Amino acid sequence: MAQTATEQGYAIVQKTALGFQEAVEKAKAELKSEGFGVLCEIDVKATLKEKLGVDREPYVILGACNPQFAHQAMEAEPNLGVLLPCNVVVYREDGETYVAAVAPERMLSIVGNERLGPIATEVRKRLAAVVQRVAG
Amino acid sequence: MAQTATEQGYAIVQKTALGFQEAVEKAKAELKSEGFGVLCEIDVKATLKEKLGVDREPYVILGACNPQFAHQAMEAEPNLGVLLPCNVVVYREDGETYVAAVAPERMLSIVGNERLGPIATEVRKRLAAVVQRVAG
Repeated sequence: MAQTATEQGYAIVQKTALGFQEAVEKAKAELKSEGFGVLCEIDVKATLKEKLGVDREPYVILGACNPQFAHQAMEAEPNLGVLLPCNVVVYREDGETYVAAVAPERMLSIVGNERLGPIATEVRKRLAAVVQRVAG
Repeated sequence: MAQTATEQGYAIVQKTALGFQEAVEKAKAELKSEGFGVLCEIDVKATLKEKLGVDREPYVILGACNPQFAHQAMEAEPNLGVLLPCNVVVYREDGETYVAAVAPERMLSIVGNERLGPIATEVRKRLAAVVQRVAG
């Protein structure tokens, strides 16, 4: 049975029984089903190993964009690109796999533009659904 | 003479006399000189044209990461990847070129983890320097 999505303020986080790579693939598929393309994928573990020589557990950042919502939001707020795309991350910690998405209404609250409210609400619903389904 | 960096809350924004592509190249070079790698580059104009068929002015998002600060911040806050990397954007609007960076202390304020404060202050100083130098 799926866990209830928990709210940690800036992130929607759940544990999943999937392995790391399985969870990454599932997250991409679920993002696609909710209308998000993955515009960039950052392998944090590999980047930190290469740049700093440090070893850490697997961690990937998926930069997800729903073009329709992004377009509407950037028309309302030209500088909004500094906060886009919306990220979903998958990581391992203490032998568990976690999936998390940014909480868009929390992130966009710092902008102070009320035209973003309805977009944030819709994007949150979709990202929460992605996290929920990856959590299984 | 360089403009004074203005603060719009969530973004550090300046106009620049450079052309769009020149400003993008300058932003990348200045990020590098401040210790940031560009982990992803999103051509917003091309993406929205491809996905929605809409025409808009040039807009690029550079996802910038200083590995040392990113590592420290993620050790303090495992879900922080939902807010990373730090973006610098370059865009055209009404015949002018703008450069903007996320205001890291404002973005990280939604996390509520005081260990991030000194990192945000240092990253802000560096991103503000990048914006300032692109603005010329």
